[in-house]
Amino acid sequence: MAPHTVQLVLQYDGAHFSGWQRQPEERTVQAVMEDSLLQLCGIHVSVLGSGRTDAGVHALGQAAGVRVSDRWTPRELRRALNAVLPDDVWVAGAFPMRDDFHARFSAVSRSYRYLVGTDDTAESPFRRGRELAWRRQTDRAALDAAARHIVGPYCFRGFAVKGTAPADDDHRCLVREASWSSREGGLVFTIRANRFLHHMVRFLVGTMLDISAGRRDPELMAELLAAGDNARASPPAPPHGLYLERVEYPDEFYLADT
Amino acid sequence: MAPHTVQLVLQYDGAHFSGWQRQPEERTVQAVMEDSLLQLCGIHVSVLGSGRTDAGVHALGQAAGVRVSDRWTPRELRRALNAVLPDDVWVAGAFPMRDDFHARFSAVSRSYRYLVGTDDTAESPFRRGRELAWRRQTDRAALDAAARHIVGPYCFRGFAVKGTAPADDDHRCLVREASWSSREGGLVFTIRANRFLHHMVRFLVGTMLDISAGRRDPELMAELLAAGDNARASPPAPPHGLYLERVEYPDEFYLADT
Repeated sequence: MAPHTVQLVLQYDGAHFSGWQRQPEERTVQAVMEDSLLQLCGIHVSVLGSGRTDAGVHALGQAAGVRVSDRWTPRELRRALNAVLPDDVWVAGAFPMRDDFHARFSAVSRSYRYLVGTDDTAESPFRRGRELAWRRQTDRAALDAAARHIVGPYCFRGFAVKGTAPADDDHRCLVREASWSSREGGLVFTIRANRFLHHMVRFLVGTMLDISAGRRDPELMAELLAAGDNARASPPAPPHGLYLERVEYPDEFYLADT
Repeated sequence: MAPHTVQLVLQYDGAHFSGWQRQPEERTVQAVMEDSLLQLCGIHVSVLGSGRTDAGVHALGQAAGVRVSDRWTPRELRRALNAVLPDDVWVAGAFPMRDDFHARFSAVSRSYRYLVGTDDTAESPFRRGRELAWRRQTDRAALDAAARHIVGPYCFRGFAVKGTAPADDDHRCLVREASWSSREGGLVFTIRANRFLHHMVRFLVGTMLDISAGRRDPELMAELLAAGDNARASPPAPPHGLYLERVEYPDEFYLADT
């Protein structure tokens, strides 16, 4: 009956969630998870995510930490949660973790992908809501050049919502990978960094797509990396194309599965 | 203001439809299409489908014929419909057709596909409801052998709901293609025939999967093709893995686009 720490890896379709974080009167992923754990465990279990996702943003691999009785093996906890969770959230994996594991502070990187549909079925019922249907021109060389600009340690204040970080935050993020690839029906942007500012991926994608369509100057990427605010960025791309793909933790936090 | 005949090619997510055909008090694709046309044209326009799809079955290329005023070019009709239709039905194409075009009787073949998910994320929110998550063994050689059995002209009474065809129907269908292929995350069954009996693809898939899992004898395919009823078939596979993919008409029914 001792408690132990479990990392849950979650997938969710963000369409009908007001984002990750519990808020009064709103349907959020954290609230749905905590309600399901209350139903299973009979007590309140806090679900701590690696970070918030906005309303409408999807997850293929959000990570969350829970402390539950060790009567629940990770495997059994996963199975029991999937039996009670609604259809739009799903536990893809469950791992036993060291007790000092912290889903937010232990993370060393997060990866996002953003799906852009460029063919003529991007608005079909099977793709709508899961990628951005982009009707303008896409210049792949311009997209690649724009993505190369942002790899490295930079201040991303030019690509973030103002005033949401602590006053002493330097807005620096270390972007380890940022690239566009072709996929069936369109393109995908992949980005991995130690952390992300509020709306950062969506601001980046919105600005890169506008550059690629010839609506903004290619120099804008470099200018925004030196900017003090987002005044010149394009509007953020809509949330329904964005997926939190993976959260990485150092190996030493993982315990042998029991 | 003369009327002309237009073929609409429709995609829909079948999850929230009680199938194709208009029925009192039910949300059906035909009713949603006719309601949208009434809204646009101000008069009732009948929407004649190539055939019915059951509740929960999806379409990537259902075909339907309409007669509308020639003030509506096919292109404008498509655009206007997509602006008023709900998110789960979408006009993928619109073509001017000869006036003797009949969506059902002019069709020379229909193609269906059935998606089977065999990996461990088949029940994720992004795949659930759009493919069958199959947890048992799949023996690909057994599936291929079973599919080969059904190519040709046969009586498919052994794979159909009883009593839904006219009394004098011989239940013969000419299956031109039936094959399994690998896809990311699982398998897909593709079948093309001049016509299909009620639940026929779902009965075929249910029985083939059971054979492939070792639950039924491989000889069952041949036995059912000679059977007078479906008593020995496996239960039909669920509707949410099935897609009406394409309906083919002879070239001469298509008019030059205006």
